[in-house]
Amino acid sequence: MASLSGSWRDAYKGMSSDNIKGLVLALSSSLFIGASFIVKKKGLKRAGASGLRAGSGGYSYLLEPLWWVGMITMIVGEIANFAAYAFAPAILVTPLGALSIIISAALAHVILHEKLHTFGLLGCVLCVVGSITIVLHAPQEQEIDSVLQVWNLATEPAFLLYAAAVVGAAIILIVQFVPQYGQSHVMVYIGVCSLVGSLSVMSVKALGIALKLTFSGMNQLIYPQTWVFTLIVLTCVITQMNYLNKALDTFNTAVVSPIYYVMFTSLTILASVIMFKDWDRQDGTQIVTELCGFVTILSGTFLLHKTKDMVDGSSSLGNLALRLPKQLEDSNGFEQEGIPLTLRRHECTKSPRPMRQFILPQDGPEAV
Amino acid sequence: MASLSGSWRDAYKGMSSDNIKGLVLALSSSLFIGASFIVKKKGLKRAGASGLRAGSGGYSYLLEPLWWVGMITMIVGEIANFAAYAFAPAILVTPLGALSIIISAALAHVILHEKLHTFGLLGCVLCVVGSITIVLHAPQEQEIDSVLQVWNLATEPAFLLYAAAVVGAAIILIVQFVPQYGQSHVMVYIGVCSLVGSLSVMSVKALGIALKLTFSGMNQLIYPQTWVFTLIVLTCVITQMNYLNKALDTFNTAVVSPIYYVMFTSLTILASVIMFKDWDRQDGTQIVTELCGFVTILSGTFLLHKTKDMVDGSSSLGNLALRLPKQLEDSNGFEQEGIPLTLRRHECTKSPRPMRQFILPQDGPEAV
Repeated sequence: MASLSGSWRDAYKGMSSDNIKGLVLALSSSLFIGASFIVKKKGLKRAGASGLRAGSGGYSYLLEPLWWVGMITMIVGEIANFAAYAFAPAILVTPLGALSIIISAALAHVILHEKLHTFGLLGCVLCVVGSITIVLHAPQEQEIDSVLQVWNLATEPAFLLYAAAVVGAAIILIVQFVPQYGQSHVMVYIGVCSLVGSLSVMSVKALGIALKLTFSGMNQLIYPQTWVFTLIVLTCVITQMNYLNKALDTFNTAVVSPIYYVMFTSLTILASVIMFKDWDRQDGTQIVTELCGFVTILSGTFLLHKTKDMVDGSSSLGNLALRLPKQLEDSNGFEQEGIPLTLRRHECTKSPRPMRQFILPQDGPEAV
Repeated sequence: MASLSGSWRDAYKGMSSDNIKGLVLALSSSLFIGASFIVKKKGLKRAGASGLRAGSGGYSYLLEPLWWVGMITMIVGEIANFAAYAFAPAILVTPLGALSIIISAALAHVILHEKLHTFGLLGCVLCVVGSITIVLHAPQEQEIDSVLQVWNLATEPAFLLYAAAVVGAAIILIVQFVPQYGQSHVMVYIGVCSLVGSLSVMSVKALGIALKLTFSGMNQLIYPQTWVFTLIVLTCVITQMNYLNKALDTFNTAVVSPIYYVMFTSLTILASVIMFKDWDRQDGTQIVTELCGFVTILSGTFLLHKTKDMVDGSSSLGNLALRLPKQLEDSNGFEQEGIPLTLRRHECTKSPRPMRQFILPQDGPEAV
C-alpha cells in the first residue's frame, strides 16, 4: 500500500496551483450560493409570519435582516464564482455549479426538514461523483500574462465564428421566436440565455484575468481591451438575466433549471474549448473521461429536479407516496433579479394550492 | 483538431491487447446474456400459448425451440464472460455485467414493447458512462505465464487472509443466520452468494488463465494446482448458485438484483485488488476515477431496477402514471438453475395478478 499513498501525492501534484485556487473558489461559491437559498427562505418565512407574504405582493422581507444575510451570502458566492474563472478553465468551474444544488438540497433537508427523495439522494451522489471525475481530469489553465493575450485568443477566426453564430442565433430567437413561441416553448427563452451566457462566461473570465493581473501589479486597466470586455460582460449578463427571468416567470422551475443547466454548461464548455483550446493539451482518454463526468452531473441534476417534490413512502420500498407539490409562493419580484451567472436554483411557482397525498400500495390488496 | 485525433490513437494504444480482448469478450457476454432473456421470454410466451404456463408448473417450454435458443445464447454469454476473466482484470470485466441489464431493457423496449421509464433510460446512460470511465482507466493485466504464478499470488498472506475471512463469514451466515433470518432479511442469502462469488471469480480467472495458456501450447493441466482451482470453481459456483436461487425465490427480483450487483461486484474488485494487486500499477487519479465510474454504474443499475415497473405518463411531464406490476409468471424451475457467475437478471415473481392503472394528474383539477 506504501506505493499507493505515494501515488496519491503524485496525483495531487498533477493539479496546478491555479487550478486548485479555481477549484477552492468554485466549491466555496457553491457553498455560499447553496446556503443563501436556505437563509433567504428562512428570512421570507419570518417576514411572511409578521407581514404580507412576498407571494401576495408584500415587501416586508426587505426589513428582515435574515433575508439580507441570505442576499449577501449569494452575492459573495457569485463573486467567488467570478474569481474562480480567473484561475481555472471553464470546464472545471461551470459544472461545479451543480454542487450548490446539493448543498441547498442537503441544508433544506436538515434545516427546513424538506425530505429528499431516494432518487434525490442518488442525484446528489451522481453530482459529487461527476464533479470529482471532472476535477481530476480538467485541463491545466494555460499561462496568461496579459489581457492582450486573451484578446488575441478571442479574435481568432474559430472563436469569432462561434461568437457570430451565437449572436446571430440569439437575435433570430429574440426577433423571430420569442414573440410567437416564447410563452409556450421553454427552449426559446432558455436558448437565448444559454447562448448569451456562454459569452458572458468567456468575457467574465477575460475580465477576471485582467483584474487578477492588475491586483498582482501588472495593471491591465490601461488597455482598452479590458474595457471592451467589461462592456461585453454587462451586455451579456443583462441579456442573460432578462431572458432567464422570463423563463422562470413563465415555466415551472423544475423544468427550467435542468434544461438551463445542461445548455448553459455545455455551451460554456464548448466556448472555452474553442477560445482557450482546453482540449489541445489533453489526450483522448482525459477528454472522454471529462465528458463522462459531465453526463454524470447532468443526470444527477436531472434526478434532483425531477424528484424535488416526490417523497419516499412508508418503510416498505414498494410504496411510492406521491406528495403532489405544495405550490410555493412566488418568493418575490426582487429575488428573481439575482445575478444568474451560475444556475438560478430557487422555487417560484404560481398558485398556493394544497394537494391531497395519494399512496399506491405496490403489493397491497387490489384497490377497490 | 489534428492533434486531437492523434491523441485518440494514443489513448487506445494505452490499452494492452489482452485488455482489449477481455473488453470485447465482456461486451459480447453482456450482449448474449442480455439478449437471452428476451429470447427465452418469447419462448416461454409461445409455449404458454399452446400448453400449461411455466408459472403454473407446466414444462411445455422444454419443447419450444425458441426457449432453447435463448438458453444456448445465455450459455455462450457465460462462456464469453468466463474467458474475459482470463484476459482482463476483474475490475474491468465484472462491472460490465451491468451492460446486460441495459441490453435486455433495450430489447424488451423494442421487441416486447415493455416501455422503459425516463429514469430507466437515465439508468442506461449512467451504466454506459460508468463503464466507459472504468474501461478507460482499468489497470493493465499483469503478464502471467504459468498457473504456478497464479497459485503463488493466491497463497500470499494477504489473499489467504481475505479468503479465510470470506469462508469464515460465509459459514457463520449459513450456520447461524440462514435458519433464523434467511427468509426475512435479504442480506443473508445475498451476503453468502456475494462473498463466495468473489472467490468464484478469482478461481475462474485462475482456471481461465490455465486454459488460455494450455490452448496456446503451454500445457498447464500437468500441474495439480490447475485441478485444485477447478475444484474451488465448482464448490464456489454451486454454493453461490444455491443461495442466489434462495434469494430470488424468497424476495422480489427488483430488490435482490441491485443489492447483489453492488455486493458481488464490490467484493470481486476487492479480491482482485488483493490477489492480482491491480492498484499497485496505478496512480491515485486513476483509482479514484475507477471508483467514480463504479459508483455511476451502481446508480444506473439501482435506477433501472427501481423503475422497472414504472411507466412514463402522458405527454406532459406532470403526469406520472404508475402501472402496478403485471406479475410475470415464475419462468421455470430450471431457468433459475442458470450459471449465475454474472448477475442473475431475470424476472420471476409469485402470482400472476393484473393490476389497474392509476394516473395522478399533477396539475389537473383537485381530485374528488
